Amino acid sequence: MALIVQKYGGSSVGNIDKINAVAKRVIDYYRQGNQMVIVLSAMEGQTDGLIKMAHEIADNPDPRELDVLMSTGEQISVALFAMAVKAMGYDARSLLGFQAAIHTSRMYGKARIHTIDTDRITNELKKQRIITVAGFQGLDDHGDITTLGRGGSDTTAVALAAALNADVCEILTDVNGIYTTDPGICPKARKMDIISYEEMLEMASLGAKVLEIRSVEFAKKYNVPIHVRSSFTRERGTMVVSETKDMEKVMVSNVAYNKNEARVTIKKVPDQPGTAARVFKPVLESGIVVDMIVQNTSEDGTTDLTFTVPKADFYKTMKLVSDVARKIGAEKVSGDENIAKISVIGVGMRSHAGVAQKMFEVLAEHNINITMISTSEIKVSCVIDEKYTELAVRALHEAFGLENDRKNDQ
Amino acid sequence: MALIVQKYGGSSVGNIDKINAVAKRVIDYYRQGNQMVIVLSAMEGQTDGLIKMAHEIADNPDPRELDVLMSTGEQISVALFAMAVKAMGYDARSLLGFQAAIHTSRMYGKARIHTIDTDRITNELKKQRIITVAGFQGLDDHGDITTLGRGGSDTTAVALAAALNADVCEILTDVNGIYTTDPGICPKARKMDIISYEEMLEMASLGAKVLEIRSVEFAKKYNVPIHVRSSFTRERGTMVVSETKDMEKVMVSNVAYNKNEARVTIKKVPDQPGTAARVFKPVLESGIVVDMIVQNTSEDGTTDLTFTVPKADFYKTMKLVSDVARKIGAEKVSGDENIAKISVIGVGMRSHAGVAQKMFEVLAEHNINITMISTSEIKVSCVIDEKYTELAVRALHEAFGLENDRKNDQ
Repeated sequence: MALIVQKYGGSSVGNIDKINAVAKRVIDYYRQGNQMVIVLSAMEGQTDGLIKMAHEIADNPDPRELDVLMSTGEQISVALFAMAVKAMGYDARSLLGFQAAIHTSRMYGKARIHTIDTDRITNELKKQRIITVAGFQGLDDHGDITTLGRGGSDTTAVALAAALNADVCEILTDVNGIYTTDPGICPKARKMDIISYEEMLEMASLGAKVLEIRSVEFAKKYNVPIHVRSSFTRERGTMVVSETKDMEKVMVSNVAYNKNEARVTIKKVPDQPGTAARVFKPVLESGIVVDMIVQNTSEDGTTDLTFTVPKADFYKTMKLVSDVARKIGAEKVSGDENIAKISVIGVGMRSHAGVAQKMFEVLAEHNINITMISTSEIKVSCVIDEKYTELAVRALHEAFGLENDRKNDQ
Repeated sequence: MALIVQKYGGSSVGNIDKINAVAKRVIDYYRQGNQMVIVLSAMEGQTDGLIKMAHEIADNPDPRELDVLMSTGEQISVALFAMAVKAMGYDARSLLGFQAAIHTSRMYGKARIHTIDTDRITNELKKQRIITVAGFQGLDDHGDITTLGRGGSDTTAVALAAALNADVCEILTDVNGIYTTDPGICPKARKMDIISYEEMLEMASLGAKVLEIRSVEFAKKYNVPIHVRSSFTRERGTMVVSETKDMEKVMVSNVAYNKNEARVTIKKVPDQPGTAARVFKPVLESGIVVDMIVQNTSEDGTTDLTFTVPKADFYKTMKLVSDVARKIGAEKVSGDENIAKISVIGVGMRSHAGVAQKMFEVLAEHNINITMISTSEIKVSCVIDEKYTELAVRALHEAFGLENDRKNDQ
């Protein structure tokens, strides 16, 4: 008998039929002798509807009240799910954040889980009940409702799995696992059996939406195995686990891309201490998230500074930076919306040299120019012209042999 | 400075514009130096939408989970309202049932309020905040969400007013007070300045929907003055208060009618002990609410038994009763859907004889036949042919002088 925490996303509980299908699936697991704790997101579309109402009331809705509002979405899901299970003849109980004793920080809209008091859940499980817990929500130490931010239901599931010492945390979603790259643009993309927390973290920070980044951090910290799999089929998905020896045998495990950034370059910035700080201050103060930053070595007392921001913030950033550029005497500001960031990821990079070199060579072979480069311990990212995205992804996937199972040598 | 509890119904918070209008109104009261505690119902239509979803899941949705589901309606209202107040520059806090410490019995869907721990509300009021409390919901001693049943927000408001020792409990609704009768069918109907709890209770039990009957019982028990008034205008409405000497000066204060019942008669029932019990058992066990019951004096060893049930249950009742009638050897069962119950109500009946007699005479003058009669201490009800409803209401309103202020003699 295993204790299984499962999380179903909004698309898996998007209507009554889907909720019934999830109930059936959970009951199957339960009948096999497992203890089941089910974390649900809001039904697809519900969250957007609530946000829309809030923004009709105020441009900047009060964060505390926004959390009170938003948390109704998951409340509706768990109530309907528990009803469905009961209607099928099995005992179930829904628990909201305050009932599941999920204590969080007071950061409305992006609260962090501090502790979970599992007494109530454990008692309910002892009564042979299927438990469903509203994802995404908790209670701060003032007794006020908080939410964990978009995708927070993943974090709820992993945190519950950690607190309950569950055997596995299954994340059920509309894809059937983690792929070596986007199957939509690379037909040879392969579903991975296993991936390390570290690789998954890099992928999440590069924009992969399968798992919320904080849930992976949580899982890594408490060593909770995550099983990412489809809510529509029973086939095995991808296990997200601690790094193993096998994983290091391969250099690269994934190719990722991101078309949602834009590039801003400031030419001939006087190369003095504090210049970078002056350039980025207005951008960061506007809440714009800067991703890659590259600064060239200075020769003539000036330097070129290039960075990327979300495409949605491009024009705002250009204006802010142009103002600063004038003040500090930079030559000019240029920008490009049509870029893509291509990344190769793999814990094997720690033990294999030459991944970056190989990546540059592959791109060069296809006449793809690189405008920015950034590296981490287990990742190399290059910014290229957006139109080469698909070509680059396919070429790198091929070159690093990702269509083969990780166990094979490269 | 007064402490005012106000309750706004679903039609008063039915959309964003209306919520903003309520926020403005509350802020006006607040700026006049009052402490404001605002109880809200779910936005109009929301509750029906939730019920519909639940019934798509199960014919008889689990009552515990139905309450978890239903309570989201009020949660949305209070969050949006608090946002609106904050967006207008005033401090506000929403409190759900569990946060306002509204402790109830464990009767899902029709829980009763046991106690309210006012510490949190009192603390928030001390911080000069406008407080909004989700109506209709509470928490049982297992920490589970309960709801008070339809119209339960009235009860929440009155219970809060009692617990907080508020100066008044205002019920803001889409009518501007309690009328001597339905203005829709009697142009001379007059808005009353004042009505007693007892009269209001009779009216509520006769189907008046302005106030939920349990809220009136609560107000009577704790002597909470209720002010029923329009949420769309500032004019004074009707005060519901303890009986005063003045009220007893008039015989009748209201004429009520109900077209939603049907009559069932069993002819020549053998007149033996236990017969009535046998007749009503299957009806009551089916959850059908029997209203008036009249049994004629027996002469030939049989008796005629007549009663009314909601129109919606008429055919079901006819079938159940016909089965029983055969078993107990009654002659036959007849029924009539086209009836109306006309009632005159007034605490003055306690000190004035002849109200029933006058009512019968008035109906007779207009050739209206009476098929059933039932009386209470402050009410006389007659069942008549439905088509005479409007005529009867107008005639009785006129005859009892209800177009004149209560202070005038009749």
